[in-house]
Amino acid sequence: MILVKLGGSVITHKNKYRSLNLKAMERLAAEMARAGKPLVLVHGAGSFGHLVAHEFHLDQGFQDKKQLEGVAKVQLDVRDLNQMVMRSLEVAEIPAASIPPSACALLESGKLKALDMELFHRYLDLGMVPVTFGDVVLDRINGFGICSGDQLIFRLAREFKPERIIFCADVDGIFSRDPNLDPDARLIEKVDRGVLDALPRTTRHTDVTGSIYGKIECMLRMSRMAQSTMVINGSVEGRLERAMKGEKVLGSMVVGG
Amino acid sequence: MILVKLGGSVITHKNKYRSLNLKAMERLAAEMARAGKPLVLVHGAGSFGHLVAHEFHLDQGFQDKKQLEGVAKVQLDVRDLNQMVMRSLEVAEIPAASIPPSACALLESGKLKALDMELFHRYLDLGMVPVTFGDVVLDRINGFGICSGDQLIFRLAREFKPERIIFCADVDGIFSRDPNLDPDARLIEKVDRGVLDALPRTTRHTDVTGSIYGKIECMLRMSRMAQSTMVINGSVEGRLERAMKGEKVLGSMVVGG
Repeated sequence: MILVKLGGSVITHKNKYRSLNLKAMERLAAEMARAGKPLVLVHGAGSFGHLVAHEFHLDQGFQDKKQLEGVAKVQLDVRDLNQMVMRSLEVAEIPAASIPPSACALLESGKLKALDMELFHRYLDLGMVPVTFGDVVLDRINGFGICSGDQLIFRLAREFKPERIIFCADVDGIFSRDPNLDPDARLIEKVDRGVLDALPRTTRHTDVTGSIYGKIECMLRMSRMAQSTMVINGSVEGRLERAMKGEKVLGSMVVGG
Repeated sequence: MILVKLGGSVITHKNKYRSLNLKAMERLAAEMARAGKPLVLVHGAGSFGHLVAHEFHLDQGFQDKKQLEGVAKVQLDVRDLNQMVMRSLEVAEIPAASIPPSACALLESGKLKALDMELFHRYLDLGMVPVTFGDVVLDRINGFGICSGDQLIFRLAREFKPERIIFCADVDGIFSRDPNLDPDARLIEKVDRGVLDALPRTTRHTDVTGSIYGKIECMLRMSRMAQSTMVINGSVEGRLERAMKGEKVLGSMVVGG
């Protein structure tokens, strides 16, 4: 089984609020269809979730009845994106089933405490592709909170011990510095604990959606549960398909040791 | 707590494939907002679900891989309708959370075996309105099957022992004959076991979405779990709001004894 994460930045338009990149999404769906492997798919929310979640301070949990409007709005918005992802899968003739975390997961102080794994197993056994995504989710302690795509990937990796975990980013992999800002940024083809420790402190904190340091740390731990874990550029045609088929593609292998 | 079922025929256009009746839905959302009571909402699927479900024989469970396309399509279509229902609730400033049965329920040979009740309780406790709907759902024996709005209402009634259960139909209540076909049809204001037994045999089998006899039987059993159970005309302005507030409105009271 292969676990694929489509980053929000790959399937939505940058700097355009709540706008699906339909062309990219349909291409990626077609690549997944051609790879023809059992698959669980996780996608990010991009601008469909982040802005309103920030506006209503949803990451801080329940503090005020007024936030409930924000909970409802973010859940609606990320499902709008998810519906469009599902339609693209339908076009590519991938029978897929959407599993929104807000209807089957529970956090505990922000940590993913429960996710109904039986659902994922049953849809896979039927021959369908379970699809889940970052969402606003109930929290046993805080009322509600944010469940990120990365938390979901981690839980799914632990459960399924996949053959491959493939993260699709909008750059070629993990870089020594932010490749969008620094022309000297160098692609790191093999990422291990030593690489993480050697990253310059500034890089550790430049990612707006949580530090890149934390993301790599999480990937390193996850990589121990899979035969291979890699970060590739989902914006480049053919990379996802070839990576799914086990062919060598440009990217970063993550090796947790 | 009040349990409201919006029939598919009230919120979609008759004889128009996959067409929300936005005006009716927004009016009903506004009425629910004005009634201002804790609420769990269930809605039917209308033409968003039935046709494709029929085409792929989804009620018969898994027989063929080709049906999986139908499972995916119906789940997508009913969620399209649900997203529109949720947007109408947002417009009416009702903070609501959608709970798709395909992501949290399990059938066993067509019977609703498991539905995550904790989700409903937690969203209600937060001050939100849980919303669920007829869907294609995993089945432990048959692979998948149809979970109707009525199965959901029954399970929710058993769990919550609501103050009121209100069924919104597109006619004034339960009639002695089909009111769309027979000018002599008479509204039955109090429906009990005796009324059911006295229904002419023809009436028992005239409903295309399952016999009206079965529906009334189910309502009679359900009514024992609530302080009051009624069928009203959701297409008439103000009836739902007044019924939710406990005012007397035209309709059929269901009294299971």
